[in-house]
Amino acid sequence: MNQKAAKSGNVGPRHRSDAERSIEAILDATLKGILAGDDVKMAVVARAAGVSRVTLYSHFPTREALLEASVDRAIAHAKDLVSELNLDQGPAPEALSRLLGSHWQTLDRYRSLYLVAASSLPPERLRALHTPLFGRIKTLIARGQADGDFRTDLSRDWLVATVFGLMHQAAEEVAAQRLPVRKAGDVVTTTVLSVFICA
Amino acid sequence: MNQKAAKSGNVGPRHRSDAERSIEAILDATLKGILAGDDVKMAVVARAAGVSRVTLYSHFPTREALLEASVDRAIAHAKDLVSELNLDQGPAPEALSRLLGSHWQTLDRYRSLYLVAASSLPPERLRALHTPLFGRIKTLIARGQADGDFRTDLSRDWLVATVFGLMHQAAEEVAAQRLPVRKAGDVVTTTVLSVFICA
Repeated sequence: MNQKAAKSGNVGPRHRSDAERSIEAILDATLKGILAGDDVKMAVVARAAGVSRVTLYSHFPTREALLEASVDRAIAHAKDLVSELNLDQGPAPEALSRLLGSHWQTLDRYRSLYLVAASSLPPERLRALHTPLFGRIKTLIARGQADGDFRTDLSRDWLVATVFGLMHQAAEEVAAQRLPVRKAGDVVTTTVLSVFICA
Repeated sequence: MNQKAAKSGNVGPRHRSDAERSIEAILDATLKGILAGDDVKMAVVARAAGVSRVTLYSHFPTREALLEASVDRAIAHAKDLVSELNLDQGPAPEALSRLLGSHWQTLDRYRSLYLVAASSLPPERLRALHTPLFGRIKTLIARGQADGDFRTDLSRDWLVATVFGLMHQAAEEVAAQRLPVRKAGDVVTTTVLSVFICA
């Protein structure tokens, strides 16, 4: 729609890229604040992003909308990282280990964002935002099941859910200082592989 | 403190039991509303419980306080049910299966309460409310490890966390209609036993 408008000349490219820059600055400021442990407040975010409150509200009418967009961008980033892992290569259990180790690092980077989002957004919304990532995991599970590497007595949907549940449980354990962050990747990998392989 | 006050005659037994009855009616009305899928609103809860809004706010100053008390009561109920399971009897894997099957039913009963609480209370608060239950699970895990039935390469804290994480992930899968409720108990038991037994 935006591209069409740009082509028809109604919205100039300069104008559009101003809006994009504002959104980028707003999301950067939001993430920076969350990683620093600040509460997300619209006025504070606007100031930190160097935009007016009118501009902020025009892009993100509510705090929830701002958090959703932040999670969405983090997941797009995670998806790019997952693409680099070439999950379709090598035995499925090895590819899964690569995914869990690497995704843990991404998750650890965004841990505070996740915790803020989990306390502000409904679980089903949080899960829906993760859908783009789940497709990759599901394809990998299907390959592992076809190769006889992964169990088939539990559904693919449930296996995807265990990955999601155990990853995020680990993030909470790290946040609560019951699990050292340097061990978290290995612990999650060991746990998920036990579920996937031991029938 | 209340008992002391009662003994000194400042607060009569009749007065105290009025307050207890109000609290009971308020928590009953809250749970009933949540199980019926209603949003938790203070005015609605007061009306359904047959108490004034002043009485409601005197016991629960905020919606969060009301939700916390509701979760707290549900967990006390779950703890009573767990006591009846005699987890110290029989092989640890069998006791764990009894716990998971039975606790699933309790969790299923309180599923909507959990989902409302999870979207309104911080994860660490929700976890703290579960502490009384976790003690029982931890004792059972210690026994299973000592008997050589459960793995010892993952910490007890993490094994408790996996039970919690997988149970609640299952509750969300059921709520999202990706997992049939009649299968959930077996699926959770199979998954948790895989984590606990396959090293």
